[in-house]
Amino acid sequence: MESFAAHSQKGIMVVFSGPSGAGKNSIISSLIEADVNRVHSISLTTREPRPHEVNGVSYHFTTREHFETLIRHGDVLEYDEYCGSFYGTPREPVFQYLNEGKDVLLDLTVAGALQIREKCPDAILVFIMPPSIQELVSRLSTRGTESEDALAHRVETAKQELRMAVKFDYCVENAKLEDAVNDITAIMRAEKCRVSRLCIDGRLDKTV
Amino acid sequence: MESFAAHSQKGIMVVFSGPSGAGKNSIISSLIEADVNRVHSISLTTREPRPHEVNGVSYHFTTREHFETLIRHGDVLEYDEYCGSFYGTPREPVFQYLNEGKDVLLDLTVAGALQIREKCPDAILVFIMPPSIQELVSRLSTRGTESEDALAHRVETAKQELRMAVKFDYCVENAKLEDAVNDITAIMRAEKCRVSRLCIDGRLDKTV
Repeated sequence: MESFAAHSQKGIMVVFSGPSGAGKNSIISSLIEADVNRVHSISLTTREPRPHEVNGVSYHFTTREHFETLIRHGDVLEYDEYCGSFYGTPREPVFQYLNEGKDVLLDLTVAGALQIREKCPDAILVFIMPPSIQELVSRLSTRGTESEDALAHRVETAKQELRMAVKFDYCVENAKLEDAVNDITAIMRAEKCRVSRLCIDGRLDKTV
Repeated sequence: MESFAAHSQKGIMVVFSGPSGAGKNSIISSLIEADVNRVHSISLTTREPRPHEVNGVSYHFTTREHFETLIRHGDVLEYDEYCGSFYGTPREPVFQYLNEGKDVLLDLTVAGALQIREKCPDAILVFIMPPSIQELVSRLSTRGTESEDALAHRVETAKQELRMAVKFDYCVENAKLEDAVNDITAIMRAEKCRVSRLCIDGRLDKTV
């Protein structure tokens, strides 16, 4: 039977950014636990692994030389330098997952997210928003890992990042984890019905 | 507490089009039953009411003169003439519902949907797709209300309409009613997280 198959069979790339304390990690973990067709993109870095870190789990560790070769060949989707080390997203595993029909979730800085937008216009950019500055301060304080100065600095950075939310496709408030996860689940389902995505796949045109 | 409130408080306008037999009516009924904050826009027409029709239920009935006045004043969001009568969407009730925070669902022809796109760029256009031409024929046949010629004509019209799906925002396949309704529910939830919609509301800008 000739079918109009409306959903795209390719996976979608979903980039999450937002201030520290907005809850990106919990959201991504919940999304991945809920569906085996979702994977978390693991970043590549040139920094030394810490004692507890396993290569390919928290990060892929590599040399600066190899990282620079990947950049020159266009094999890094986004990258940045931080404290003298490179951090970035290797192209190949992301596209392999997408072609297998898996949705790839990326946790990136705002700058990294905007680099993805340039290279991968199909990617969805989701900004995770804390419910309020007060709540953000409270979340960061209860971590208990920061000095008062460091905390003040994080809050200032957060305020700057919040201004960048307008550059994203979606903005999800994480007041309650379950609601935020449901919002993003809806966003991913909706995006699979977008005509622009279906046309890219060439499936709609073929049917008529 | 200063809040970043991520969801828009205004309702959204969702326009459904698709060939006869795609299942628009069942979908809209299910969506409205599921949420009291959704309303179905009732069309205005200049044709005579049929014996069973109640003014304000299936249609708002009016005179040709009044309809033409509304058109001149820009108070009709879309309209068309069919068999010598006008059919259209009156502006005022739609905007009143939207301002009350209600989502307004409209069941329109493809031409009507595209008129809405011009006048209301915030509206979401959803094309409802039958799973296949074979299934469409089968659905139209079991209605038992059509001659073979009329059926062939409907199928030809349907094929032409399917080509217009590319002009819509979303395309939802109605193979199983429940899946289609869940797709649209996700689309509506996702659209309320769209940054472009939040910016229009001026809520994101106010927060930082």
